[in-house]
Amino acid sequence: MRARVEPAVTADELRLVLAESPFARIHSFQLESFGPGKCTLRVPFLQELERPGGIVAGAVLMTVSDVAMWLAIMTLLGKDTMTVTTELKTTFLNSARSEDVICTARVLKPGKTLIYGLAECRSTTDVLLSHHTITYIKIPS
Amino acid sequence: MRARVEPAVTADELRLVLAESPFARIHSFQLESFGPGKCTLRVPFLQELERPGGIVAGAVLMTVSDVAMWLAIMTLLGKDTMTVTTELKTTFLNSARSEDVICTARVLKPGKTLIYGLAECRSTTDVLLSHHTITYIKIPS
Amino acid sequence: MRARVEPAVTADELRLVLAESPFARIHSFQLESFGPGKCTLRVPFLQELERPGGIVAGAVLMTVSDVAMWLAIMTLLGKDTMTVTTELKTTFLNSARSEDVICTARVLKPGKTLIYGLAECRSTTDVLLSHHTITYIKIPS
Amino acid sequence: MRARVEPAVTADELRLVLAESPFARIHSFQLESFGPGKCTLRVPFLQELERPGGIVAGAVLMTVSDVAMWLAIMTLLGKDTMTVTTELKTTFLNSARSEDVICTARVLKPGKTLIYGLAECRSTTDVLLSHHTITYIKIPS
Repeated sequence: MRARVEPAVTADELRLVLAESPFARIHSFQLESFGPGKCTLRVPFLQELERPGGIVAGAVLMTVSDVAMWLAIMTLLGKDTMTVTTELKTTFLNSARSEDVICTARVLKPGKTLIYGLAECRSTTDVLLSHHTITYIKIPS
Repeated sequence: MRARVEPAVTADELRLVLAESPFARIHSFQLESFGPGKCTLRVPFLQELERPGGIVAGAVLMTVSDVAMWLAIMTLLGKDTMTVTTELKTTFLNSARSEDVICTARVLKPGKTLIYGLAECRSTTDVLLSHHTITYIKIPS
Repeated sequence: MRARVEPAVTADELRLVLAESPFARIHSFQLESFGPGKCTLRVPFLQELERPGGIVAGAVLMTVSDVAMWLAIMTLLGKDTMTVTTELKTTFLNSARSEDVICTARVLKPGKTLIYGLAECRSTTDVLLSHHTITYIKIPS
Repeated sequence: MRARVEPAVTADELRLVLAESPFARIHSFQLESFGPGKCTLRVPFLQELERPGGIVAGAVLMTVSDVAMWLAIMTLLGKDTMTVTTELKTTFLNSARSEDVICTARVLKPGKTLIYGLAECRSTTDVLLSHHTITYIKIPS
């Protein structure tokens, strides 16, 4: 990946993307940090989305990793390049219980057509909850 | 997979599992049909979960495929065997627009420790929206 | 997938592709059958490629599934469209011991840019050895 | 992952494993370095395994990543714990042409039953060729 000095989007632009995304809104995803090819989101623990036993649902981890990668791509391509997920693989490694989740996505290869990257979700005590591979495809405008 | 004459759960038991699952409830997943090693759910189109442009969100497809596989496994093992998802890979193939989604999961190999299966989501006009591979692991009780 | 009456290649053309592919040659892959969007190859058991204990190596199952999908795509696009594998996921389900392997690949979605399909390897006694998801991308000529 | 001061195997033990593995032998995999939960192998370029156009075959990248992960697991569990691959997903990112390949695997989660890790293959000029997720399962002895 070519090194970039500056992300192609601002924090306000990424927050607007989150505010306009129905799923990011349902789960109250919050922007923690970002840089070229990278984005970290926080998922606040929400009582009503827990599974029996207080376990954070896998669906939340899959969703936040997809959104974090989408934003990580925007840091490279800007917010107006249309991209969609073609493939998302999640491996569930540990359970989160009644706690916030921190998800970091980073682009490994921003190709001409396909963009491939990784995401991982960790608890606030740094336990690795899930690992994800994600592929986006650029949509010709 | 050994052929079974009867599923190990009833329709009422599966409907109760759906009613008690927060995610199945948010998305109003409905039991369409089931048999040994197989389960089909319907996802009614919900205005508030659509993406810009009326596209059914990928998160819904991932979530319903995970839940459908969970129920498909229950048809083999009964509803009291604890299992959790270890891996779920989704390939997004076509977009669903403002329409119900039908998701069918089926177990390919019910192993001693791991259970592997496939799921697919289709539109009501039979367009293939997404394809999923899913692995569950049995939790020793 | 649009139904096609005729494959876009002949058996002789597919056999030539196998003969010219170093990996297909090392493993002596043989064309069993094919149709539009589908191809079946046979892997003869070769003593020198076995793992300790007479188990057919996973590398053989991954390789034959990749080649079978490549040929399945040719049945739709002809043998001159350049395509390369972007993603191949293998789930190993049962071990093959000192026996031939039959691998069938079929295209699920022949998209404009990406082609997605499944492959499975079975023993000659119909035991499911491995299951594969495979994505190819078309290379603009 | 618990930090370990010492790998559970020696370099000689890992080299013996490579020497006894038919696939590692065919491809002449060489041990470059290892540490607790990590292993790096070198794949010398072999004329006879190239694809048309001098491209290193995907099968080699898949095979070396599987073997490197196997050895990375041995650095944690010793060489006598039986483990087998249950899942290996490869994303092909760039082509290697007539050059050696360096593959590094590392364990992300050494669980009680499943061991999950990542591998990547790079050219000797540090181009990322492929990225892999790999799951092994322990076989009860």
